[in-house]
Amino acid sequence: MNIGKLTIIGLGLMGGSLAKALKAKGAVDQVWATGRRSASLVRGLELGVIDHWTLDLAEALRDADVVLIATPTLVAEQVMADIAPLLDEKTILTDVASVKGNILRAAEAVFGALPPRFVLGHPIAGSEQSGVEAAKTDLFVDHRVILTPLASNDSAAVQVVREMWQCAGAEVVEMAVDEHDAVLAATSHLPHVLAYTLVDALAASGSAADIFRFAAGGFRDFTRIASSDPTMWHDIVLANQQAILAGLDNFADHLQMVRGLIAEADGPAIKQLFSRAKQARDEHFLGQYMAGRSKPPR
Amino acid sequence: MNIGKLTIIGLGLMGGSLAKALKAKGAVDQVWATGRRSASLVRGLELGVIDHWTLDLAEALRDADVVLIATPTLVAEQVMADIAPLLDEKTILTDVASVKGNILRAAEAVFGALPPRFVLGHPIAGSEQSGVEAAKTDLFVDHRVILTPLASNDSAAVQVVREMWQCAGAEVVEMAVDEHDAVLAATSHLPHVLAYTLVDALAASGSAADIFRFAAGGFRDFTRIASSDPTMWHDIVLANQQAILAGLDNFADHLQMVRGLIAEADGPAIKQLFSRAKQARDEHFLGQYMAGRSKPPR
Repeated sequence: MNIGKLTIIGLGLMGGSLAKALKAKGAVDQVWATGRRSASLVRGLELGVIDHWTLDLAEALRDADVVLIATPTLVAEQVMADIAPLLDEKTILTDVASVKGNILRAAEAVFGALPPRFVLGHPIAGSEQSGVEAAKTDLFVDHRVILTPLASNDSAAVQVVREMWQCAGAEVVEMAVDEHDAVLAATSHLPHVLAYTLVDALAASGSAADIFRFAAGGFRDFTRIASSDPTMWHDIVLANQQAILAGLDNFADHLQMVRGLIAEADGPAIKQLFSRAKQARDEHFLGQYMAGRSKPPR
Repeated sequence: MNIGKLTIIGLGLMGGSLAKALKAKGAVDQVWATGRRSASLVRGLELGVIDHWTLDLAEALRDADVVLIATPTLVAEQVMADIAPLLDEKTILTDVASVKGNILRAAEAVFGALPPRFVLGHPIAGSEQSGVEAAKTDLFVDHRVILTPLASNDSAAVQVVREMWQCAGAEVVEMAVDEHDAVLAATSHLPHVLAYTLVDALAASGSAADIFRFAAGGFRDFTRIASSDPTMWHDIVLANQQAILAGLDNFADHLQMVRGLIAEADGPAIKQLFSRAKQARDEHFLGQYMAGRSKPPR
């Protein structure tokens, strides 16, 4: 595959890593980047991640073959309104946002309907670091990218976006928009909300210092995601509000059921539930390990 | 410090590691072990972790200076009844159970009141492995051991138990029984219940395979403790029932408050809560790191 001109709107870890990966494979001729401020663009050029930058959106989009929106989730909605009057119908548009339903609704509001060559995507990859300085060629290797095309999408455009991510080393899968948002709410967004909530509940209690003082390794692992970027997670929670509320309610119901078992001291049922959960988790991660997708399970 | 005869009831990771640590320091003359089955006792002798074993409880206790109950939590209650008629009043008795209130209540039921030389203790240390084969000399180094003595305890006995754990490399702190159980419920027992509950809720949902298939690193960390031993955690949940229910209710209330913020799309309040939680967690683990108590925080 070859992309003549790739334009990244919002140059950071994700866009920068894609640019490096495609350049390393010789799969792109020119990488352009644009954004609201020049700092990351200047840095990206210095690092050789991109070839050109401009603050002029029209120049950035002109003759672009593929445009990647890689801004924070809530900014992406505004970016669509900005690019709508400038977008050539031949240009393929895609994005990396963690939630797809709000992007689809915003696109429908801006364009009337999802443009056939706008392919919604979500690479499931990240790092504790952020910014274009942290970009790395292999960020997407052996990671999944979920595309959520509609029936109205141009299949040639979907194929280009698919090959672009495969070229960066990712496994590309397709999913419906609603299914994507529900799955991510369950496996990622809800756990973040639970971890933030637990740490905040403990920090608010009178004996917080003692509580944290005696926290051990299990607590450290369990709450690691509560050290994630609050602004990014605020965006995600607002963007995926309905799926997160549904997941939260399902979890809260399950927790009340478990509370009932503990209150009744129903030992056999408690042991059965804990065993079932351990088995599900062990099989999942052991399965990934056996398939060569991950490090040995812990 | 020197212990003439140390007897371990229930030889596994905890008792075996204490025996190895004390032997390495020359702080014990003879280590005996007893239990219901001989397998781990035979193995402990082969490995040189202990010097003698017997299935005869009376022989194990005879002239013992310190007796350590290191069986699973719920078994410990029965062990007390078994040793009550055999225990010399000069012998110091201690334990390693993760919950202290149920041990205290069981001791009061068996003995009428907590014997002055029965010092309740809880080393906050563990390993993913278990059994006497996994015992290691440095298991308790730089870990905390919480003792929960009552006013009626013999202060000389408390001092011996304190020095025993210090000799094994631990930092010994004292706490009230109720406080210990509330702190451990919040930092350890409740997180385990939440992790088991989340994994079970997801496993029970129709699209479980998809959900686990797209789980990423954050989910893996968050649910690691759901791979813990179900039997051990069943014991702990039953032993610390009231404190866990109180912690669970406090968490569930906090979660409903957070649900309200998400339902109202109250962005500023959500960001403030996430930021507060991140700060509390980062400060705690960074504080431990700065004090040289842990590896660099993640």
